[in-house]
Amino acid sequence: MAWTCNLHLSHKIPFSLASSRFISEASHAFSKSFTTPFPSRSSTTHTSIKSNSPTLSVSATGTFTWDDVVRISQPEILPDDSSDLTGFFEKIRICNRGSEKQSEFLPFAIDDQVVGYIHNGFASHLRKFQDVFVFPQDSSCGGHVSLHPMLSTPEERTSAVGDVVKCLGEELIPGIRNELYPVASSFGAPIFFSLERAAAPYFGIKAYGVQMNGYVERDGQKLLWTGKRSQEKATYPGMLDHLVAGGLPHGIACGENLVKECEEEAGIPRSIANEAIPVGAVSYMDIDGYRYKRDVLFCYDLKLPESFIPENQDGEVDSFKLIPVTHAANVIRRTQFFKPNCSLVFIDFLFRHGYMSPEYIGYLDLLQSLRSGDCS
Amino acid sequence: MAWTCNLHLSHKIPFSLASSRFISEASHAFSKSFTTPFPSRSSTTHTSIKSNSPTLSVSATGTFTWDDVVRISQPEILPDDSSDLTGFFEKIRICNRGSEKQSEFLPFAIDDQVVGYIHNGFASHLRKFQDVFVFPQDSSCGGHVSLHPMLSTPEERTSAVGDVVKCLGEELIPGIRNELYPVASSFGAPIFFSLERAAAPYFGIKAYGVQMNGYVERDGQKLLWTGKRSQEKATYPGMLDHLVAGGLPHGIACGENLVKECEEEAGIPRSIANEAIPVGAVSYMDIDGYRYKRDVLFCYDLKLPESFIPENQDGEVDSFKLIPVTHAANVIRRTQFFKPNCSLVFIDFLFRHGYMSPEYIGYLDLLQSLRSGDCS
Repeated sequence: MAWTCNLHLSHKIPFSLASSRFISEASHAFSKSFTTPFPSRSSTTHTSIKSNSPTLSVSATGTFTWDDVVRISQPEILPDDSSDLTGFFEKIRICNRGSEKQSEFLPFAIDDQVVGYIHNGFASHLRKFQDVFVFPQDSSCGGHVSLHPMLSTPEERTSAVGDVVKCLGEELIPGIRNELYPVASSFGAPIFFSLERAAAPYFGIKAYGVQMNGYVERDGQKLLWTGKRSQEKATYPGMLDHLVAGGLPHGIACGENLVKECEEEAGIPRSIANEAIPVGAVSYMDIDGYRYKRDVLFCYDLKLPESFIPENQDGEVDSFKLIPVTHAANVIRRTQFFKPNCSLVFIDFLFRHGYMSPEYIGYLDLLQSLRSGDCS
Repeated sequence: MAWTCNLHLSHKIPFSLASSRFISEASHAFSKSFTTPFPSRSSTTHTSIKSNSPTLSVSATGTFTWDDVVRISQPEILPDDSSDLTGFFEKIRICNRGSEKQSEFLPFAIDDQVVGYIHNGFASHLRKFQDVFVFPQDSSCGGHVSLHPMLSTPEERTSAVGDVVKCLGEELIPGIRNELYPVASSFGAPIFFSLERAAAPYFGIKAYGVQMNGYVERDGQKLLWTGKRSQEKATYPGMLDHLVAGGLPHGIACGENLVKECEEEAGIPRSIANEAIPVGAVSYMDIDGYRYKRDVLFCYDLKLPESFIPENQDGEVDSFKLIPVTHAANVIRRTQFFKPNCSLVFIDFLFRHGYMSPEYIGYLDLLQSLRSGDCS
């Protein structure tokens, strides 16, 4: 099961050319004029984008094929841009929206520790559950939302808040997964209760996940195993994804979760999955309507044998493809084909594996921006 | 020439047991009792440290030998502590002192951009140079120090401030190196003027450096080439250091500087040095008296051939030794043998190469703390 950013693409693409939503602004910035016959299996209308000079043709539906990915990934398709970090900055911005709207949220605290943030509008729906939530007398004067003191054990809190989430229904909190996330002030801190995963951003709680860069080395060149999400997925259908990724549910350690996801998502046996190494973490904070996402992704690298071919077991991945890392970097910088938060983990990979140079303008800013959220 | 933290050890070791200043508090935290016959070439008195249970004997002079390093690095010398990050946190704290004293400093701004911070006490020495520095009317009400508007070009500023530094003399600014650092608001930003390296912390300007983890892989195990600084060095004599490190002077790019330092410090030919990859950056901020260090170190990794033996060319390194990474980690966590800022770069290496696990308590905090300074 994949860790998702839970953003509706139609809301999150800032381009004025709605029809070009999967092609990044970065692709428009080049001065040399050329035309890319950008094919798509889709039978829908194709739109030409012309901005400055380069012209790219892309499916208006937003669907794309591996052929599209391979085409746009080629170094020669656009003038050399390896030192231009614009496209990477753009992908990080997409994961970190709405910081100016933090004042619309009330802290959500338990035992005087802030565990989340709740939007004033969403809070109005919670006010009717007076035996579960306690509100400040006058929220315009500050204060915080808390749980009713009668709910003193994690089990009682989990049950009471779970009932509220069910009661609010799919209309307010869509995509219920029946999967519980721990609620704590930071990673490893005491867990106050557990909350339905889909509800996490509505309560602004910290959420954790694992994402793995699965790569092979061939003739001194690194290649990245990339997945294409099933068209049936509720979130980001058909988009590119890491070989293995998953949210971190209550009660399982990162490493063990990764091994489990390796098996489910890519058919990687435990003997190989155990070779994956933890390499750090990225974070982001994204405000979208009532939702305040505060996510931390633990990053892993797994160098796979050349002979290994991934096979999805849980139906969540349509297919996999091995792409040179430099080409995958072009896909990230030039398009929005990747599920947004994958960009952070992959850009971190580019830093750690020497694909970024301090001489590139914005090197330190980009490095810092990979932990724009509360990374704790 | 090595990048240095410029801290006088006698000022920076926070331990109550002055005689044990090279053995970390972390070593005291274990419950199992045993005695380590910790030999030293030094003929000075040896002191036993007893705290909780473990007892370590260490030279009272603070000198140590490679034998000492090898002994203290052994996993079996202390109970297993690989998941205990206490010793690493301590090393990071040592590089990041005095944040509570920021209010004693005035911003130093040029063209309305803050480029540094100057201590009120140091500022009093600058006040007599009225044709160079301009002070706020009442510094207790805020404001900032700036350069006299007549100094309009970088050359004029460099010359005028340089004269002041010379005039203040070694007593106030010791260790003049006749090496210029660029003064800018951030890396890659326009350079307002250049400043003598030794004066940089007195003006609180950002300073940049490169540090390289030089390692080999043997039978699947990584080993780190470690240098021992010459006893003649003005800063951190005799302490452990990375294979290659250097400050970044005005007018040279990071990558080129690294290649130069590789040759000077370890006799690494350009053909091999070019294989070094940039892997990110760490930062710290340290206030000590009048000095406000705001340093960013660009980190590099170089996987060396097993056959390569480093040879110092500039007399700044006494000798080199190849140490298993896990053992070097023990040296960092258990002692203060390493020059302080090396710890940051090496801990970053441990994160990136899978030696740290998200399951270790404090994983995210430690990761974050590697960029405690303004990393821009």
